[in-house]
Amino acid sequence: MPEKNRQITLAQRPYGFPKESDFKLVETDIPKPNTGEMLIRNEYMSVDPYMRGRMNEGASYSKGVDIGEVMVGGTVGQVIESNHPDYQSGDMVQANLGWQTHGISNGEGARKVDPSLAPISMSLGVLGMPGLTAYFGLLDVAQPVAGETVVVSAASGAVGSVVGQIAKIKGCRTVGCAGTDEKVRYVLDDLGFDGAFNYKTSNEHGASFQELCPDGIDVYFDNVGGPITDAVFPLLNLRARVAVCGQIAQYNATEPPVGPRLLWHCIVKRLRIQGLLVFDWADQYDQALREMAQWVSSGQITYREDIVDGIENAPEAFMGLLRGDHIGKRLVKIA
Amino acid sequence: MPEKNRQITLAQRPYGFPKESDFKLVETDIPKPNTGEMLIRNEYMSVDPYMRGRMNEGASYSKGVDIGEVMVGGTVGQVIESNHPDYQSGDMVQANLGWQTHGISNGEGARKVDPSLAPISMSLGVLGMPGLTAYFGLLDVAQPVAGETVVVSAASGAVGSVVGQIAKIKGCRTVGCAGTDEKVRYVLDDLGFDGAFNYKTSNEHGASFQELCPDGIDVYFDNVGGPITDAVFPLLNLRARVAVCGQIAQYNATEPPVGPRLLWHCIVKRLRIQGLLVFDWADQYDQALREMAQWVSSGQITYREDIVDGIENAPEAFMGLLRGDHIGKRLVKIA
Repeated sequence: MPEKNRQITLAQRPYGFPKESDFKLVETDIPKPNTGEMLIRNEYMSVDPYMRGRMNEGASYSKGVDIGEVMVGGTVGQVIESNHPDYQSGDMVQANLGWQTHGISNGEGARKVDPSLAPISMSLGVLGMPGLTAYFGLLDVAQPVAGETVVVSAASGAVGSVVGQIAKIKGCRTVGCAGTDEKVRYVLDDLGFDGAFNYKTSNEHGASFQELCPDGIDVYFDNVGGPITDAVFPLLNLRARVAVCGQIAQYNATEPPVGPRLLWHCIVKRLRIQGLLVFDWADQYDQALREMAQWVSSGQITYREDIVDGIENAPEAFMGLLRGDHIGKRLVKIA
Repeated sequence: MPEKNRQITLAQRPYGFPKESDFKLVETDIPKPNTGEMLIRNEYMSVDPYMRGRMNEGASYSKGVDIGEVMVGGTVGQVIESNHPDYQSGDMVQANLGWQTHGISNGEGARKVDPSLAPISMSLGVLGMPGLTAYFGLLDVAQPVAGETVVVSAASGAVGSVVGQIAKIKGCRTVGCAGTDEKVRYVLDDLGFDGAFNYKTSNEHGASFQELCPDGIDVYFDNVGGPITDAVFPLLNLRARVAVCGQIAQYNATEPPVGPRLLWHCIVKRLRIQGLLVFDWADQYDQALREMAQWVSSGQITYREDIVDGIENAPEAFMGLLRGDHIGKRLVKIA
């Protein structure tokens, strides 16, 4: 029997927190690449919080996944058949082929990855979309200045861990929060943050931030929204910048989330709040990846991967990501 | 009996909406200017929404008024005695002497006004702080581009009326909301907005904005906050800008105001939200006032004053301002 393409599709739209039955593992024939296309056997796929939004009806910044469609997402793997002029069989390619063992790419949004320079899985993490999000979100949107205090939520995650380390490279005081004591130790000991606390055991986030940020907060890199963001806003300094990257606290909400009105702070503090999506910097990826690769090879940026084995376990890997079970970049190993 | 200085002081801090007994009219001796100072007899004083914040305990962007202190605010009047090298008796001066018939200025934050060029009251309105707030808030913060749709809340007010007219000068489609049918007519007929609605009789603000902004909203100049802002956010276009100037909907709140969480929109739309205080542009006032004066004299900017007579009526003039009784720039005529 010939090898099959194993895929995870969207079985139904989740109500609130996703469950196993919202996904379906299906097997299909391995597709053939047309002219200008290549067939890739995926070795790793990424699970990321943004995927929760794509499971909903209607548009967010991108089209949602239709019922029965393969779940979207970043992948890295090997070209096994190419009709594309720029790619050859054997090339390692990072693309967005979704939750499946095999996929066809026409080269759009794809890039070759050199396995002799770094493990290919890094192209989905620190040297991929999450790392680039941290890089442009911090440096271009939040624009920290040496000596300023930078606060990062979800500090042990794929994006937050890089934000904090770049902020340190730029001479900032860096403070984060995370959801377990183990994550807090990782943030402090491995990532070199100046301060961090466990928001799940902190009774009063505002007091925790205040203690760790005696000079107030100049930059807030927001991965979570919700009560953590509510606690940060009153501590923002004059002309502070807020880079809004994620709002995971509300991705599974079944009612429109409400909270304290925050815009008044903008006037009093002349805040700048700006949302970001990494695709907006696509023309600057190469330069950023070169700089990030240097920081990684010099040890100024460390990273950690949390690898779940087998595409059949992708739904659970994703749900665990939303629960915060992981430390660092969560990936699914496929091949 | 010699003339007295009549002053309105803060008698007690308001709880919620201010009332007459929160203010007190007192008479004191007219002060004498020291070296480097001048005595000014005020002819007009300004009432503005920001003054509500100054009546509270604790700091906002400026120190609050203490109990028993004269209420703060912009004034324009004539120098009647000068020991200041740059000012002479008879000069007309715009300064911030507060709610009183006479005041001492050392020249800080003061500027001469030429009564032959424009009525001096305009130095508190279209050619003063509200006009400058509109100018810098729209042009520097929101940065509208010709053809874009600009939405202004409190569109008939001192700031909103100027924002809309500058937006028209810059080639934008301009839409506003206001709180009476008469204000809406003023906004459409006199100020030349492309669309406007009465938010007090509109059942669904979102539907009203949607009808008037078929191409979405590129710039939102926010004077009010609250439910109007909630209705605008879902209609903002990709890369829209929000200039946060005022949040009058919550100035009299007795509990921390809550509402829909808005930051998620920042990511989806890559919004930029920025708060503004006009003092930040103090070094550019002269150039802006020259340009504004040209627009006024060419008729491209019209303005309307709503003048209440007598300093003893300043508290009621201010409370009426918070209720929205006025159209255009509300002033109190003193002398």
